[in-house]
Amino acid sequence: MLAFPSGRMLWATYLVGAEFFLKGSEPDLPAVSTGSHIDAIPYSGKYDGVIGVLGAIEPINVLMRSGFKPIRSLEVIMFTSEEPTRYGISCLGSRLLAGSVSLAGALKQTVDNHNISFLDAAKSAGYAKNEDFSNVFLDDQNYSAFVELHIEQGPILENEGVSIGIVTAIAAPASIKVDFAGSGGHAGAVLMPQRNDAGLAAAELALAVEKHVLESGSMDTVGTVGILELHPGAINSIPSKSHLEIDTRDIDEKRRNNVIEKIHESAVAISKRRGVELLEFKIVNQDPPALSDESVIKAMESATQVLNLSRKKMISRAYHDSLFMARKAAMAMIFIPCYKGYSHKPEEYASPEDIANGVKVLVLTLANLSLIN
Amino acid sequence: MLAFPSGRMLWATYLVGAEFFLKGSEPDLPAVSTGSHIDAIPYSGKYDGVIGVLGAIEPINVLMRSGFKPIRSLEVIMFTSEEPTRYGISCLGSRLLAGSVSLAGALKQTVDNHNISFLDAAKSAGYAKNEDFSNVFLDDQNYSAFVELHIEQGPILENEGVSIGIVTAIAAPASIKVDFAGSGGHAGAVLMPQRNDAGLAAAELALAVEKHVLESGSMDTVGTVGILELHPGAINSIPSKSHLEIDTRDIDEKRRNNVIEKIHESAVAISKRRGVELLEFKIVNQDPPALSDESVIKAMESATQVLNLSRKKMISRAYHDSLFMARKAAMAMIFIPCYKGYSHKPEEYASPEDIANGVKVLVLTLANLSLIN
Repeated sequence: MLAFPSGRMLWATYLVGAEFFLKGSEPDLPAVSTGSHIDAIPYSGKYDGVIGVLGAIEPINVLMRSGFKPIRSLEVIMFTSEEPTRYGISCLGSRLLAGSVSLAGALKQTVDNHNISFLDAAKSAGYAKNEDFSNVFLDDQNYSAFVELHIEQGPILENEGVSIGIVTAIAAPASIKVDFAGSGGHAGAVLMPQRNDAGLAAAELALAVEKHVLESGSMDTVGTVGILELHPGAINSIPSKSHLEIDTRDIDEKRRNNVIEKIHESAVAISKRRGVELLEFKIVNQDPPALSDESVIKAMESATQVLNLSRKKMISRAYHDSLFMARKAAMAMIFIPCYKGYSHKPEEYASPEDIANGVKVLVLTLANLSLIN
Repeated sequence: MLAFPSGRMLWATYLVGAEFFLKGSEPDLPAVSTGSHIDAIPYSGKYDGVIGVLGAIEPINVLMRSGFKPIRSLEVIMFTSEEPTRYGISCLGSRLLAGSVSLAGALKQTVDNHNISFLDAAKSAGYAKNEDFSNVFLDDQNYSAFVELHIEQGPILENEGVSIGIVTAIAAPASIKVDFAGSGGHAGAVLMPQRNDAGLAAAELALAVEKHVLESGSMDTVGTVGILELHPGAINSIPSKSHLEIDTRDIDEKRRNNVIEKIHESAVAISKRRGVELLEFKIVNQDPPALSDESVIKAMESATQVLNLSRKKMISRAYHDSLFMARKAAMAMIFIPCYKGYSHKPEEYASPEDIANGVKVLVLTLANLSLIN
């Protein structure tokens, strides 16, 4: 059983063993890493993330059995909390590994819906000893490259009959939390002119998000209100509070930030017009886009050529742990087709053949990158 | 200890004893009854309903101690489930007592959010022996009159400095459940033109409810979306389902039904325009308004005169168990002022003086009605 270099895997995985690590002939050189996540959103599918973890273990084993001797060590990473399900922060593990000082600070106060602190949860999972989360930051010498295998989560590869997508950039995501508060009251007794309905303010803002996104002028701008909650949530009560969570993304950071600014202006205007208080408009994260590294892209292109697989360079509109790993290593992603582009719902599916193709490309890409001295 | 006449209280209260029943000299005549409910919506106040139960017990005791001899018996009723909190059906107890055949049928299949059937819940509370709920229907000979003491739940009495409101009519309520379904998907990967967002359909319908209500042309029309839920409810998922519950009321039944019709038209139009499926548009209840009985109003007016209290005839925009009891007995309600008209929220408040005034009017009203042979 091989142990990982101390510390660096703390926030990513507690998997240790020969299946997840192949020692290079020059183990002091920055290693080549691959991996993804296995956590999920509610009512999701079972391919998002998972094939990038299981599909990363297989190449290590194949290379080991074949007697392949890498120069750089190869490592599998399983990131914690890629989805924001529990603590409301996406890519929590990779964000922290990538050295987010603000996240390391914020995590000290972060609790889940059951008031369990992040620190306690991390401790009970064997991830943290104390609350100095900055001790897990990677430095630039840990990894020379990072590669992630993932389903496309969109319909392009399937529609065009292409086997492999090579991701050249990851769209820039931002997430926003908004809270409105009004006076509430009885749904029968309070006449319409006396109302300041926090629920209708939320409904207006949700539609404003769609409007501003459509007005951006680019197909690459998207925006979503995935969470909209009313309080107290009774049919005969005027909502006294509402809570929205907004996700907006673009491959152009400036255009996306412009949409965020317009959403904020709308929130303020709605609040004034309806006499509803805008309790919070919080930009939870506003990440820059990531560009893939030419050296990793080339290794992938070479792999698809050897395997005689069709390929297409593309943008990832969904974001991934790779977005953050790109800050610490040369990064690119391998996409495979998924059924109708479905993701984040139970119908999500990728065929065994497509998964096998992705794993094969990953094997050759890792082998290639591990030999670059 | 006195037992209530078998059966009739089954759905209203299991309170038995001298404090809640005063036997008349002609106990076979239809009795005079008073009461309200003590259940609540989430995050509500503590006066709505409660003062009509506690405030109904006191008059029986006062009359008993004073040696008063009624002709008709006097009874206190505590209704179950006036609020729709648990089973989604408002005024469940009084609706059933009043002989709702459709409710008696529907209750056999009704379950709460924890999948506990209404029958099991009623059994465990000692309310039901079998699922023939129709055996609790009142007949026209059970009660000659029903009187309910309640906070106004609006600001009129407080604003005008009037002590007692005498309710001459109760506005006609209706409630509607709506479900939309779309394809959902990943908030990053699915481009805007490919979306059919069930959450935005819900937001549009909520605003349409407000629009149609405001266009009714009357201040007496109100409409509220108190419940709006998104599925799966994750920031990075396009909502694949949405659920709304709509409450709309008016003192004019035709005008209210016209608003419901327009809301339905909007739901269909939104569904078509957004490519979202309208899974359900269900009018859960659509009750006619109730008029108070002149004999009970006169008894109340006489009581306020004797007590030298200011009074005002008014409409109840909120609805009450009285709406349904009116189908089986001569009905009227006594309103008392409440702080700023607040109701269905923790700030709900009525002063001890105003409550005492209401109880005094109730004492004299019951005494008066109990002597009419």
